[in-house]
Amino acid sequence: MATFPLIDENAASAEVRAVFDDIRATRKVDWINNFWRALANHPPTLRRIWQGLKEVMAPGALDPLTKELIYLAVSISNGCVYCTASHGAAAKRLGMSPKMLGELIAVVGMANQTNRLADGYRVPVDERFENLF
Amino acid sequence: MATFPLIDENAASAEVRAVFDDIRATRKVDWINNFWRALANHPPTLRRIWQGLKEVMAPGALDPLTKELIYLAVSISNGCVYCTASHGAAAKRLGMSPKMLGELIAVVGMANQTNRLADGYRVPVDERFENLF
Amino acid sequence: MATFPLIDENAASAEVRAVFDDIRATRKVDWINNFWRALANHPPTLRRIWQGLKEVMAPGALDPLTKELIYLAVSISNGCVYCTASHGAAAKRLGMSPKMLGELIAVVGMANQTNRLADGYRVPVDERFENLF
Amino acid sequence: MATFPLIDENAASAEVRAVFDDIRATRKVDWINNFWRALANHPPTLRRIWQGLKEVMAPGALDPLTKELIYLAVSISNGCVYCTASHGAAAKRLGMSPKMLGELIAVVGMANQTNRLADGYRVPVDERFENLF
Amino acid sequence: MATFPLIDENAASAEVRAVFDDIRATRKVDWINNFWRALANHPPTLRRIWQGLKEVMAPGALDPLTKELIYLAVSISNGCVYCTASHGAAAKRLGMSPKMLGELIAVVGMANQTNRLADGYRVPVDERFENLF
Amino acid sequence: MATFPLIDENAASAEVRAVFDDIRATRKVDWINNFWRALANHPPTLRRIWQGLKEVMAPGALDPLTKELIYLAVSISNGCVYCTASHGAAAKRLGMSPKMLGELIAVVGMANQTNRLADGYRVPVDERFENLF
Repeated sequence: MATFPLIDENAASAEVRAVFDDIRATRKVDWINNFWRALANHPPTLRRIWQGLKEVMAPGALDPLTKELIYLAVSISNGCVYCTASHGAAAKRLGMSPKMLGELIAVVGMANQTNRLADGYRVPVDERFENLF
Repeated sequence: MATFPLIDENAASAEVRAVFDDIRATRKVDWINNFWRALANHPPTLRRIWQGLKEVMAPGALDPLTKELIYLAVSISNGCVYCTASHGAAAKRLGMSPKMLGELIAVVGMANQTNRLADGYRVPVDERFENLF
Repeated sequence: MATFPLIDENAASAEVRAVFDDIRATRKVDWINNFWRALANHPPTLRRIWQGLKEVMAPGALDPLTKELIYLAVSISNGCVYCTASHGAAAKRLGMSPKMLGELIAVVGMANQTNRLADGYRVPVDERFENLF
Repeated sequence: MATFPLIDENAASAEVRAVFDDIRATRKVDWINNFWRALANHPPTLRRIWQGLKEVMAPGALDPLTKELIYLAVSISNGCVYCTASHGAAAKRLGMSPKMLGELIAVVGMANQTNRLADGYRVPVDERFENLF
Repeated sequence: MATFPLIDENAASAEVRAVFDDIRATRKVDWINNFWRALANHPPTLRRIWQGLKEVMAPGALDPLTKELIYLAVSISNGCVYCTASHGAAAKRLGMSPKMLGELIAVVGMANQTNRLADGYRVPVDERFENLF
Repeated sequence: MATFPLIDENAASAEVRAVFDDIRATRKVDWINNFWRALANHPPTLRRIWQGLKEVMAPGALDPLTKELIYLAVSISNGCVYCTASHGAAAKRLGMSPKMLGELIAVVGMANQTNRLADGYRVPVDERFENLF
């Protein structure tokens, strides 16, 4: 039920195994989830996405949990089942409680509601909201 | 260029004015932005959305800034111009710096990218990611 | 500010003019709105879309106003500015009142909200809801 | 295969049970569908969404069936599997026939098609379509 | 687990069978996939969609494989599971290799990423990009 | 009317200028379009996105024009105004004719239509379409 077979963690090529090893080391986990095993069918994508994700999700002006909450919220809003499950698990690992998730989903629902209200009423942007920074 | 005329802050009906007053008091601002002036064309929606938004965005297990960042991220991801501008301003008021916004947009972009990769590869959910709580 | 120039109502080719004439006759209007003037840059698309639209929007088990309300609701939900404006005007011509539009937008907002809640909670479909007809 | 366990109809807290009772009474049904049992994991969301839905879907300028058809159309357009199933069942209960559903899906498909055509051709809004009401 | 039962290839009405026969003849296949068997519940939709699809996907300024790749890319981007599977198979039949699919999914992911970056930064369109043709 | 000011091509920091120079050299153009000038407000994003885009859009199993057509199709389908304009221009530079664009938009429209039909009818994936490669 997948587009490509999932690449076996152990039987992967050297190029793929190097990325898998970095995923395990960076995340301090001992297994590789299906997303990366699927991407391994196209090694340049596997490498590029992992490098990009590692860079984007590293601690910065936003802490890792806040970043995961944003990632999860966008994934729910896009209706991506896999990403909702995997980033839900990632956020939980970083400290997201059931109550935090309940509030996050409520914000996602409310944002989707008011996004459509703004479009339905064709609300013009207030001048004071232009040029944010 | 709007579906309905924007209701004048001062010439509104008593029902609408009561909501406008609560918005100004709750947010400690002295004006009403276009979103609410548009919704005022349908007072039951104005009242219901404002009450819901006030409840959802109140401090809870997630703090108000984190909630605004999630709201902004979803609005960007949905391509809602008005909401991106208004919730960008709201997040800035609560302390979002240019660097935080740069990182937020990067996470939104990355999530949209991997959401589609997961769908393109039709990745099955790992058993370990089921039953989150 | 368009991808292609809008084709002049009067200077169009015979093939395009035939569709324009049918639009004016079917809708009992004396002008052609920009959507069709843009599509006229690719005559097979102009003809195919007009024929399909005429068939789909004709009275059937659903009356024309109900069909226009559904069309408008989907257009708002998709954030399509042009379609929100044009199908809003079409629905108004068929009898949509300001109050009906207010309720329609409220339903669109609510549906977008609960769609995301269902995805966020990953709610399994109840057995009783399977096999609708 | 859900984010949270579905709350048992009978073992719920008093707060949740009060909402469940109101759902059963309002809809004249003797069971609670999974959507509400999932939301019951976050009681403030359960209460707020139910109150909002009850208000928005009540008879008004639009009758309940028309509202359900709009709800269903948006849910299909958003690709929400659960909502398509549950609002399909709700619309059927209110009188939607197989032929009406066939026409509804055709309108949803057509709207999604022309929404993208309008975006692809970047069609400017006709002046006559501005300021709807 | 479908909205309507799938219509049996052999037990269909004459009207439906005529479309099924044309699908088999045009595609040089000896079976009818589920999409058409579902649409057969509403014969006018079955006929209209098949005619439109046949016209749109015929060789033209773009060759059939390029058209299928575009179709598949849009289906992935929209998260349509059925269409991703069926148009993936169609593209493969026309010559899409695993490497081509890997690159296609990478482009879809990148486009979704930069689409949201453009929206997040609210980038104004460069004058040189106006009036494409 | 942007979230951040557009960074001046000439007054940029050394880090940003290096990316701008590479964009000009790679594309053989003598100016920088607004997208990159906006991203330059967050240099790590500018660098990462440019590197990724350069890699993904390079000739491979798919030629550059086919990749641009896919990119443009996804951008139209997502309703991204900026990306529709910029990737439309890029595809034109690589040889896209008006007729090719007309066909591309027709395919995007048709795909969006049938994507929603498949979701509306909740069509189960045919067994023959599983395990594509």
